[in-house]
Parts: sequence; C-alpha cells; structure tokens
Amino acid sequence: MVRVAVVGATGYTGEELIECLLRNSNVEITSLSALIDKPTKFSSLHPRFAGRTDITCKELNVDEVAEKADVVFLALPHTLSMKFAPQLLAKGKRVIDLSADYRLPADVYEKWYTGHLDKGNIEKAVYGLPELNRKKIKGAAFISNPGCYPTSVILALLPLIKLITAEGVEPIIDSKSGATGAGRKAALSLCFGEVDQNLRCYKANEHQHMPEMEHVLSNAAGKAVKLHFTPHLLPIRRGIMSTIYLKGESFKDAGKLHGLMTEYYRNEPFVRIRPFGTFPEILEVAGTNYCDIGIKHAGGITIIVSVIDNLLKGASGQATQNLNIMCGFDERTGLI
Amino acid sequence: MVRVAVVGATGYTGEELIECLLRNSNVEITSLSALIDKPTKFSSLHPRFAGRTDITCKELNVDEVAEKADVVFLALPHTLSMKFAPQLLAKGKRVIDLSADYRLPADVYEKWYTGHLDKGNIEKAVYGLPELNRKKIKGAAFISNPGCYPTSVILALLPLIKLITAEGVEPIIDSKSGATGAGRKAALSLCFGEVDQNLRCYKANEHQHMPEMEHVLSNAAGKAVKLHFTPHLLPIRRGIMSTIYLKGESFKDAGKLHGLMTEYYRNEPFVRIRPFGTFPEILEVAGTNYCDIGIKHAGGITIIVSVIDNLLKGASGQATQNLNIMCGFDERTGLI
Amino acid sequence: MVRVAVVGATGYTGEELIECLLRNSNVEITSLSALIDKPTKFSSLHPRFAGRTDITCKELNVDEVAEKADVVFLALPHTLSMKFAPQLLAKGKRVIDLSADYRLPADVYEKWYTGHLDKGNIEKAVYGLPELNRKKIKGAAFISNPGCYPTSVILALLPLIKLITAEGVEPIIDSKSGATGAGRKAALSLCFGEVDQNLRCYKANEHQHMPEMEHVLSNAAGKAVKLHFTPHLLPIRRGIMSTIYLKGESFKDAGKLHGLMTEYYRNEPFVRIRPFGTFPEILEVAGTNYCDIGIKHAGGITIIVSVIDNLLKGASGQATQNLNIMCGFDERTGLI
Amino acid sequence: MVRVAVVGATGYTGEELIECLLRNSNVEITSLSALIDKPTKFSSLHPRFAGRTDITCKELNVDEVAEKADVVFLALPHTLSMKFAPQLLAKGKRVIDLSADYRLPADVYEKWYTGHLDKGNIEKAVYGLPELNRKKIKGAAFISNPGCYPTSVILALLPLIKLITAEGVEPIIDSKSGATGAGRKAALSLCFGEVDQNLRCYKANEHQHMPEMEHVLSNAAGKAVKLHFTPHLLPIRRGIMSTIYLKGESFKDAGKLHGLMTEYYRNEPFVRIRPFGTFPEILEVAGTNYCDIGIKHAGGITIIVSVIDNLLKGASGQATQNLNIMCGFDERTGLI
Repeated sequence: MVRVAVVGATGYTGEELIECLLRNSNVEITSLSALIDKPTKFSSLHPRFAGRTDITCKELNVDEVAEKADVVFLALPHTLSMKFAPQLLAKGKRVIDLSADYRLPADVYEKWYTGHLDKGNIEKAVYGLPELNRKKIKGAAFISNPGCYPTSVILALLPLIKLITAEGVEPIIDSKSGATGAGRKAALSLCFGEVDQNLRCYKANEHQHMPEMEHVLSNAAGKAVKLHFTPHLLPIRRGIMSTIYLKGESFKDAGKLHGLMTEYYRNEPFVRIRPFGTFPEILEVAGTNYCDIGIKHAGGITIIVSVIDNLLKGASGQATQNLNIMCGFDERTGLI
Repeated sequence: MVRVAVVGATGYTGEELIECLLRNSNVEITSLSALIDKPTKFSSLHPRFAGRTDITCKELNVDEVAEKADVVFLALPHTLSMKFAPQLLAKGKRVIDLSADYRLPADVYEKWYTGHLDKGNIEKAVYGLPELNRKKIKGAAFISNPGCYPTSVILALLPLIKLITAEGVEPIIDSKSGATGAGRKAALSLCFGEVDQNLRCYKANEHQHMPEMEHVLSNAAGKAVKLHFTPHLLPIRRGIMSTIYLKGESFKDAGKLHGLMTEYYRNEPFVRIRPFGTFPEILEVAGTNYCDIGIKHAGGITIIVSVIDNLLKGASGQATQNLNIMCGFDERTGLI
Repeated sequence: MVRVAVVGATGYTGEELIECLLRNSNVEITSLSALIDKPTKFSSLHPRFAGRTDITCKELNVDEVAEKADVVFLALPHTLSMKFAPQLLAKGKRVIDLSADYRLPADVYEKWYTGHLDKGNIEKAVYGLPELNRKKIKGAAFISNPGCYPTSVILALLPLIKLITAEGVEPIIDSKSGATGAGRKAALSLCFGEVDQNLRCYKANEHQHMPEMEHVLSNAAGKAVKLHFTPHLLPIRRGIMSTIYLKGESFKDAGKLHGLMTEYYRNEPFVRIRPFGTFPEILEVAGTNYCDIGIKHAGGITIIVSVIDNLLKGASGQATQNLNIMCGFDERTGLI
Repeated sequence: MVRVAVVGATGYTGEELIECLLRNSNVEITSLSALIDKPTKFSSLHPRFAGRTDITCKELNVDEVAEKADVVFLALPHTLSMKFAPQLLAKGKRVIDLSADYRLPADVYEKWYTGHLDKGNIEKAVYGLPELNRKKIKGAAFISNPGCYPTSVILALLPLIKLITAEGVEPIIDSKSGATGAGRKAALSLCFGEVDQNLRCYKANEHQHMPEMEHVLSNAAGKAVKLHFTPHLLPIRRGIMSTIYLKGESFKDAGKLHGLMTEYYRNEPFVRIRPFGTFPEILEVAGTNYCDIGIKHAGGITIIVSVIDNLLKGASGQATQNLNIMCGFDERTGLI
C-alpha cells in the first residue's frame, strides 16, 4: 500500500485525481491540501466524496504531508509547484507534478512562462508520458506530468516524427478543449454566459504548450520539430480534440502510416488507433484514460484526429498511470 | 427622438438593452457608462456592436449623463441604483431602474436586501409591469423595472389572484433560470465547469424575489398573498420557466381559469396564453419580449407554466416597453 | 464468476450497464444483443469499448443467450421485455428487467402503458429497490428494476411516508431529467436543436412513472398515497433532480424529519443525506450510483431535493447493485 | 410591398427566414408551405410565432404559391429545390433558393451530390453572395443562396485570393459548426445525447461544401484554387467558426493583408474586420447577419478566423439580404 498526498485537492485535476486514487486498491490517500481558510472535511468542500473519504483538507504543511506520504502529487498551477517540489524532494519524497514547472528546459520555460525558482531540479524530472518514457518512469523519484494539449498532440505524432523531420514538414494543429482545461477559478472569461453557445480561438500559434510539444518531439526525433498549434475553447466540460494536418511526400501512403501507428502502440494499454479512415469523437474517451487516434488521407493531405479526456489522460489519469508504473503496479489500476 | 443613456452598459442586461434601443427608431443613445478603467469605445468592449454604435463607454459622470439624456436607464446591481437615481431625478431626468432598489417598501427591502439609502424616492417609483400599471407608467418620471422571476410569476397569477386569496391558497412555484440571470461577474459558482451538466436549487423559499411577488400580488388582490418560491439554476444562457402548482376548490374548473387568463390578456402585446392544456417551452420565447403561459388541470391540481426570456421580458425588453409607454411610442417598437 | 448477458446493449442504459459490469470483478459478460442488422463487434458499434471487450453483438437469440448466461439483463423499452422475460424465466434464468413491464400490477400497467402480454410473471418480479427490498432481492430469480424518476422520488419520501399518509398530505414533485432518460432513439423532440437552451415541461401530473411511485409508496405505507408529479426535460446528458414540496403539521419540525431520514439510511451504501438545510446538485452525483437527498424547512413548508444519475442509480447502476445483492457479492462492486 | 412565399417553412432556416421577413417592413409574407399532413396555422406548429403571423402552413401547391407571391424562397434540402424551382421560374416568379441545387456547375454537382434534374437553370442562377455579386443580384430573377460553411470561408479568403493563387498556396481550413447546420430532422447522430459534451470531425476534406468554395474562389481568382476543408460538429445551437491557416511568402506581412481585407470590405454592411491580431468569437455574431473576420501572423504562418451565424449570414439572413438587394430596398432591412 503506497501512501499518497494530493496538494491542490480542490481544483478540477485534484478532484479527478482523488477519484482515480480512491479506485486504486494499491493506494492510501493520507493527506489533502489546498488554499483554504481553515481545515475542512474534504467531503464538505466536495460533497461528491461524502461517504468515500473522511480526510480533512488543510492548508499545505510540507513537513506534515511529507511525513505521512511516500508519493506527493502536486495538482497546482505553474509557479506554485516549483515552490514546494524542491522541499518535498529534499525530504526524499517521490513527487508527481501536474504543473508545467518541470516540463521544459529553464531557458524555454522562462521564455514562455516566467522566472524559474528551482532550475536545479528540472533535469531530474522525468517527463511522464508512459508511451515515451515508461522505463525512466519506473525508477523515477520525480515526474513531470505532461500538459493536456501536448498529450493529445505528442501521442498523435510520435510514431511519425522521424518522417516529419526527415521531410521538414510543419504539422498544423487545430485543437479544441473543454472548459475544465483552464482550471477551477473565478474568471469572467470562463463563466457560463461567456462560454456556452460560443467558440473562442485563443493564443493562436503562441500558446505555452507549443514549446512543450516541440521540445518532446524534437528530442524523440533527434532533430528540431516545428509545429503550428492553435487552441480553441469548447463549450463542454471535459475533453480535447486535436485535428492535425500533414502535407508531404512521406504522408501520401496513409495506409502505411496507419500501420506504423498501430504497430507503435500495439502494446499500449491506453492508446487506441481507430480503423483506417475513421475518426474518434470526444465523447468516446470522456471519463476514460484513453487517447484515441484516427488517420485518414483525403484531397492530398493526411489528417490525424486525436482525442483525450483533458482531466484524465491529459492530467490526473496520466498521473495515476505514472504512479502505477513508478510503484510497479498494474498500469491500469484505478483507471478505465 | 428621445435621448437615452444606459448606466451599467457592460453587463448582460446593459448589453441587451442596447440591442433593444438600437432597434428602436424613436430613440437615440447618447451615453454609455460602466465601471471601467478608462474611456473605451463600447464596440471594443463588446465587438458584437462594431459598426452599430460609435459611443465611447465611460465611468459614470452624473452631470454629463444628465445633460445628454432625457431618460436614463440604470442597468445596475442593487445598492448601486439607489446611489445614482436620486441625483438623476433631482436633475429632472426620467429614470428607468432595472435593479431591485425601488421595487419594495423600505421595510421589506431592508429585511431582504440591505439598508436603503434613498427611502424618499421609493414611493415615487412606478412598478414597471405594463400589464398591471400601464396608465401609471404613461406619466411616470421614475420606473422601477420588475425582477425576472417576479415577471414570470406575477403575470401567471395576476388574472387568478382574487380566486387565490379568496380561498387562501398558497401557490407553490418551482422556477428555473438560465445563467445570465445572475449577471455578468467573475464568480466561481457561475463558471462553465460548475454550471454545465448541472442543476442547482438555491435559496429555496428564501429568495429575495419572493417578497416582490407577494407585495405586487397582494396589492393587486387587496389582500395578503402567500407564495412558496424555489428557484433553480439551469445550464442555459437565457430563459426562465416557472411551474406553478395550485390546489383548491376554485381551481377545479381549469377551463374557466383558462378563459379568465385569455380574457385578461386579450389586448396585451406581449403576453400569450397557450391553447388549454398545452405548455410553452423556454426556447419558444428566447430572444423575444413575450411571456407565454399555459394552464392545465390534471390529477386534481392546476398547473401553470410561464416562460420568459430573463434578459428581455425579465429585464431589458420590459424596460424598453416601459420607455415606449412612457414616451407615447408604439409599445412594441424595437421589440419582438 | 457469474455469467451475464445484456439484451439491449446499444441503448444508453445498455452501454452504461456494460461499463458497470466490466468494472465488476465477479462478473463475466457472455453475450450482448440488440436490434442489429448483422453480428458486429460491440466495440465497433461503440468505440468507447475498444480494447475493453471483444464480444460480438447479435440480434437476440433467446436460446443462445440462455445457454451462455446465468443472469440476463433486459435493457429494453417497455413492451419488449414482456416478450422475452417469460422465455428466459422458463429456462430457469435469473432476469433483471430495466423496463417498466413488471413494475406495476397488470390493471395499473394497462391503464398507463398498454396491454400486458405476461401478467402471470408480474407478481413474481421483485421491485429492485435495495433500500426497500434488499432481503427479497437476495433470493430473487426475477427483478424489476425501478424507473429513474421513481428512484429519485421514492428514496426521498420513503422515510416519511407514514407521516405523509397519516396526515393525508399530497406531495408536489417537480422533477427535471437529462436527455438520456428518454433513451437512445432518433426523435426530433430529442434533437440537440430542440433540447439545448430549452426547458420543456411534459406529461404534467400524467406521467406513467407517477403510478409506480404511488404504488410502491402506498405499499410501504400500508395506505394509499397520492402524489402530484410533473417532469421537465433538461439540457444535460445525465442526471435527475426531484424538488418535493410538503406542507402539513407533521412537517413543521424539519430537523426531526432530517433525523428520521439520516437514521433510515444510516447503513445504506448509496443514499447520502446532506447536512440539514443544504441541498445536493446533479453534478455531485453524476457518474455515481448515489442518491443524495437534502431537506430544509422555510416559509412554512418542507422542501426535499433528491438527485441521482438517471443512467446509474436510475437504471444500470441500480441493476448492478441488484445483481450484486442477488449473487451475494459486496453490493458496491463495480459501482462508485 | 413585396409579396413573398416561404417553401420549407418548418425547418430551422425556414423559421429563421420568417423571423427576418417579419421584421422587414417592405415585405408581406403571403404563404408558407412545408411537408405537412393537413393545413395548420403556422403559429400552432411553431408557437414562437403566435400573435405574429396568422398564416396557415400547407403542403406545397406551386400554382397557389405562385399566384400569391412575387418572390419565393425555397428553404429546402437539396434535391427538392430542383423539383420546384423550374416550375416557379416558368411562371415568372423570382426565386431565392437556399439549397445547394444551383450553386455548382452540373458536372461538379453530380460528382458531389446526386443526379441533377434541372441543369438548364443552373447557369441562370446568380450566386447570392452580396459581397461578390451585388450587381448581378440586383437584377436577378433567380438566386442561389450560398452554403453556410462556404460563406464563412469565401468571405475570409476573397480579398487574398489572387495572392493565394499566385503563390499556389493551399489554405487549410478547420471549420466548426453548430448543430442547426444539419437541419431539423430526426437523426440519431443529431440527438442531444450524441452531440452534447462531444465534438465530432466529419467528412474531413471530403465535404460537399468544399467544391462550392473552390468553384467560387477559382472564378474570383481567374485561376484554380485548391483548399483543404475539414468540418466539425459543435455542441451549440447556432454559429460557425472557420480557422484558416496560410503559409507562404505572400502572407508574411500580415499587417498588409489586414489592410487589404479592411479595404476590401470597407463599405460592406455585414462584414467586419477585427483589429489586427485579434479574433472574433461565435457568440459575438450569433443572432446577427454579420461575418466577422480576424487575421494574425504568428510562428511563421498567417491565421484567419471567420465567424457567422449559420442560420443568418449562413442562410436566411443572407437570403433576406439578397431579397433586399434584388428589390432595391436598404440592404439591412429586417437584419441586425
């Protein structure tokens, strides 16, 4: 039985993580922390958990959390993780960080986010994409859990990345995400009256998840990858679709590409390649840890559609998958 | 051509009011005010209005607004209207207030809201429900525009109110409102992730709109009316449905009641009684200033369903209707 | 390991049932049937299940299904279950029927639905509400799974039903259901353009679930119960809220009622009574098998709010709970 | 006063068209037709119109419709228009067809749709995009109203089309449409339970609107245009966003392109170019006849975002605009 703590328990990813951990028979949740005025039963804050956990949620006390837990999840916005991760690591705790703070080299991070306070630990963090780094995750003390958009895009392009770089193709990625992707916070732009019946294109080709995709894919290719990535805010609670356009000589035989992808993910428990020429829909993976991918060739270009649940494979499900790998459990424990 | 000003132009009711006023050929909008850092073209704040109005939206300056306008709309949350209304009235301006500040006697207001700063003007305000007070509205200098829930409920009960009080029946009212009813503000409870796929019952039998309904209906009946009113937050942008349950000897002949209602509203441009036994749906009035009402008798009780668009008949449409009446225009100008 | 079959696998309740059964470690799904042109892998029909089940879905063949399964779930619309249930029962199979066909005495059924083809088996069916009939369910060969609205209402009223009948109170029930409650079928009235941004009141005090509530509650009270039940169609995928109004001398001490309810459900794994004066929201039980109930007294009446996920506690979750009880498994297996 | 008839009055575009025509002070609606069992008051079919029109909706009788109307709108699915248009034209009626039947040369139509029954009239139809064909529309007897996706895309690319063909660039267009775009029909794939919380990519690079875009733009360019067009079904009622990606030497100076676009549409009443670097959202044009377009350059490519209301500028609003032009009215009459 592994003792785990969740820091940032009251956000959407925190809540979803607790769902995953409660279903995980190998895990005992020993503490829940959040920005909170006074200690409160977690099930009072989130009545969804009444009768399922008795834990009191408190303001973070690193010493107390560390004492009670073997593995600490940081379900925090960026800039907060880098304050607490070093303290927990210094105490010998294993850490799975869901923020962006350890996903990028310091210089890239500082270009796209803000000044970094814990550069020394960046290199120690294993990028927690099991399909890419399963072996490293197994022994890791520190996992940087991938971003939601990057998970949907990297998994779609990984099997083809050498073809892409060989020909110098620049994939065009049009992504669409549900509103929980922005976190649980009181922002006017996230209010129902502003999101419902709407579609909003934001940070076109300037979103901070783009360098994460390029960094990971470039490393995998051994060569610089250039992407064009434009996200949109969908009026749904959860789910991401990335529609990816590829044009080049290497992509004309899409049947072959489909074969490559199928082969690449043959043994993966949470990536499913759809029959050639068909595409997945968001509702088909919502509530699951799957990334479903379809590929098609039409009108001279290749189109890939990749869908995930942003809160699961895009965050807390993947974090749980990482925990399972780290600890030697069946990778699917607690996950659908 | 009447010169009008809108104070509180950037909220949902402000925006909708401007839509109505732009369609109103008798009206010229001369100023728009809001809580805003610096003067900004309104169409930059709300690109929906680009090419339709050139007005610059500014922080409220009562003198300037008063100088430019004959009629001032206050599309403000309660407590703000009572700060500005007296100044505008003192300058001889006609005022149509969309807040709750002048809808109730001071003692009732202070019980349900907060301390009142302008008790002297409460009695001067005409309650702007045209179906009840058309004559008074005609000559009024000061209109207190009804609340959204009260409009849907009062119109449904008005034709029957003497029957209701005669028998001492206490109607049970289960209302459901779209999310714009809470105004445009950054509140976590209004965020898409909290509202979508949800239904929330709030302030059951303790909502501040209940005394407004009771006050107006009691006056109309000449006898105290007691209601039970429970609202719910719907995952839609706009619209209210009130489902009303009546049980009593007087209500057994629902066909007669239907006749009463039809007769009562025979000449009303914005109230439609549905064929006996059928009910209206929200989508059938969304985007219009209509209040549609259905009545049915089944299982020993009478059920009335009333629907409005909360932003139109429940707020800005009704305010425009009041303006039209006040100024002697065709009551329907600018309205659907 | 119990071998189970699902008849009607492609509807919303069929799909959700398969989710529950796949998570149930005591169960092996041996066949899936549906109205279908030719045998097709279930995961091709519902790609959500790719990699999770290999079963081929076929047109129903009673002999084949019976041979392979110990327990057969009928996730069918009414009128279809009564064709197949007798054949399966005659072969000694245990049957859990999710339709309305065996919930009511024949005369009541025929009044509210249509002619009954299998009256002889109605009395053999145990009404599968565990909170009421756990002991009978344990030994049952034939379960009639409760309706969705009735589950939400009966659980809310059961602890108070003797008070209700003693005083002759007629509860007024205003229910709201998500669109999956109407089943998966191509009906214009269920299309997105007709349901989204809308609220529709239908079959007011004439819905076929009302006699089911009255029948079950009357039996529990030992005295006739009269209800008033009006449902509404919500623009959400899943979830039901029933808002219930009670007025009478017995209901003035709502604190006592709250105590009664808490006591009544003290040991129930899937009913949660909220702290006195607070209400549950649909999103707090969506995706779970819980029924959450809140109670409050205000303005002279008692208001009860009950929420369930219509596809889980209102259908397939409860069917799974019944299976677990029937077979002596931990009642919560496969359920959240 | 022009007398107009609407054939196909009960669909989403029919209903919206009637909204536009009722607001149009130059127009009298003289007949409404639809596939309907027996003559029925239109306001009984669509209670939204109660008190606003008294017309009885009937099965189409071409002679009767022709006798009563000067202009006939065909708000029909493709294949139906080509049955009735020739009869109406032969009677000297002006026709505005909202279907796809007359938008393409016969050979292209037959490749993407089905056999054409009225090839002779195709060349007589003026493609009703006012921004392209205003002069021809003025004198036209027969208008073929553009498709919804094509309107959003053609308006976005028209000012740049010569640059595009000069460099041989193939724009990549990722479009997203609300559910009313598929028409009002009982299809399982359009049901709320299938559309809500979902996003679906369909007919990727194989949608029948793609040849319409290519045909119109090629004519405008005087040179063949090749596009890549992939649509998605959004869980909203109305609205389309097209996100367009352009890569090429000519597109590096996006500020210049923005200037071109602004200039091109300087006098257009219903096209608005957003400030450089900013994008429109669907909610900003919903309920209006505007097409709003934004342009931005980032990461080496140019991105254009175009939004319309699919039922207005994408169908019935544009049809009304065409009527206004045809008849010499102010182009904006009845439109927002």
